[in-house]
Amino acid sequence: MTGRIHGVGLGPGAQDLMSVRSDRLVRGARHIAHFRKAGRAGQARRIVEGMLAENVTEFAMDYPVTTEIPLSDPRYAQTLAAFYEDCAAHLRALAESGEDVVVLCEGDPFFYGSFMHLFTRLKDHVPVQVVPAITGMSAAWTATGQPITWGDDVLTVAPATLPEDELTQRIAQTDALVVMKIGKNFAKLKRAIAAAGRLDQAWLVEYAAMAEERVRLLAEVDESTDGKVPYFSIALIHGQGRRP
Amino acid sequence: MTGRIHGVGLGPGAQDLMSVRSDRLVRGARHIAHFRKAGRAGQARRIVEGMLAENVTEFAMDYPVTTEIPLSDPRYAQTLAAFYEDCAAHLRALAESGEDVVVLCEGDPFFYGSFMHLFTRLKDHVPVQVVPAITGMSAAWTATGQPITWGDDVLTVAPATLPEDELTQRIAQTDALVVMKIGKNFAKLKRAIAAAGRLDQAWLVEYAAMAEERVRLLAEVDESTDGKVPYFSIALIHGQGRRP
Repeated sequence: MTGRIHGVGLGPGAQDLMSVRSDRLVRGARHIAHFRKAGRAGQARRIVEGMLAENVTEFAMDYPVTTEIPLSDPRYAQTLAAFYEDCAAHLRALAESGEDVVVLCEGDPFFYGSFMHLFTRLKDHVPVQVVPAITGMSAAWTATGQPITWGDDVLTVAPATLPEDELTQRIAQTDALVVMKIGKNFAKLKRAIAAAGRLDQAWLVEYAAMAEERVRLLAEVDESTDGKVPYFSIALIHGQGRRP
Repeated sequence: MTGRIHGVGLGPGAQDLMSVRSDRLVRGARHIAHFRKAGRAGQARRIVEGMLAENVTEFAMDYPVTTEIPLSDPRYAQTLAAFYEDCAAHLRALAESGEDVVVLCEGDPFFYGSFMHLFTRLKDHVPVQVVPAITGMSAAWTATGQPITWGDDVLTVAPATLPEDELTQRIAQTDALVVMKIGKNFAKLKRAIAAAGRLDQAWLVEYAAMAEERVRLLAEVDESTDGKVPYFSIALIHGQGRRP
């Protein structure tokens, strides 16, 4: 009997924002796997703290260090591809030996995120099931206390890694906006939002649904002293659509 | 002691895709409220079937019939506004009498949806708390068995109610796409996707995460015989971004 790989979405960070299905899978798991930066605890693992069975076997997948390789260098993709191959081979062997494995995924597994790189390598060999989850962006707009989209609003979700010109255009042409992957791109993002004429409408949410949650008008975040914002930061602009 | 209004996201439809927080609030509620079309059970109420306390008091909010009023007619907004005012007044009175109320919301309360029209009318008067949830679109892309966004993909979420030209442009200019509110707009949407040159990449997901779930290539859905698709239908195109 081949085991099953579960790509389990954990949601934005609060343990009770996990779905009932994910909660059951996590608590019942004999094998879990999770990504982390080498030497760090890892956010996915942190979310499930206190929920795991006593006899659980953990497989930590430590991202290779790629910070010195430019994204455009073929070695970047090669290094990551080799890493995902290794991880997938380990999980596949576990499944083929009859074990079920729960892969812990921050947010929703099919919305950005790393699990999909394992998924594509596993799906033709062993059974893989994915549990959707609450996205970080849902937690972020909930934290602002304002709906993100009304009536016929168009929502654009864009990564801050885009070139500044494209970012500016996207921001100018949408009703509602969510920007992910901000990190070191914060100063560029702030310029793009200003160039699109929407700086007074933008919010920055850090650590949505986590203990450290912080919500500010983006204009009030200083791009020189606060040059980089935490990895778990999301910028957003609320839509202004039809509201009877 | 003033009670509290909870806008509780129930997620896409499967009971175990509700968050642990929503599950607890629903099971513990003494008062629930939910929207429905007059004479219908209502999807939000259907999701929680079997979960409610025996002594729960239910407040069904029956949408007024607006099908014969054009969206552009001021009477449309007036009719809905009067309806939301009435519902909000009832919920406010309950809260002011010390009762907590759980308002059942399909999907995520702040992502389209009707709860926000109550929220704006209540938030300055009584405590209102919102629980985010898994969106219908997360369930839809999970149902296709393919990730929606990779690497630096841009995702556009658009309602099919937009004019055909704008819809075509939006579809042509994005990496990944989600289209909501399809219903009677299916034929228009199919033309717009074809005009954007992306008909071979598009999927139609009906009733994602529900018992009736159905996933098809959108090109295979006949717009003449299948002229209208169910309310719970989502069209999508997967991004093709960086994948090491």
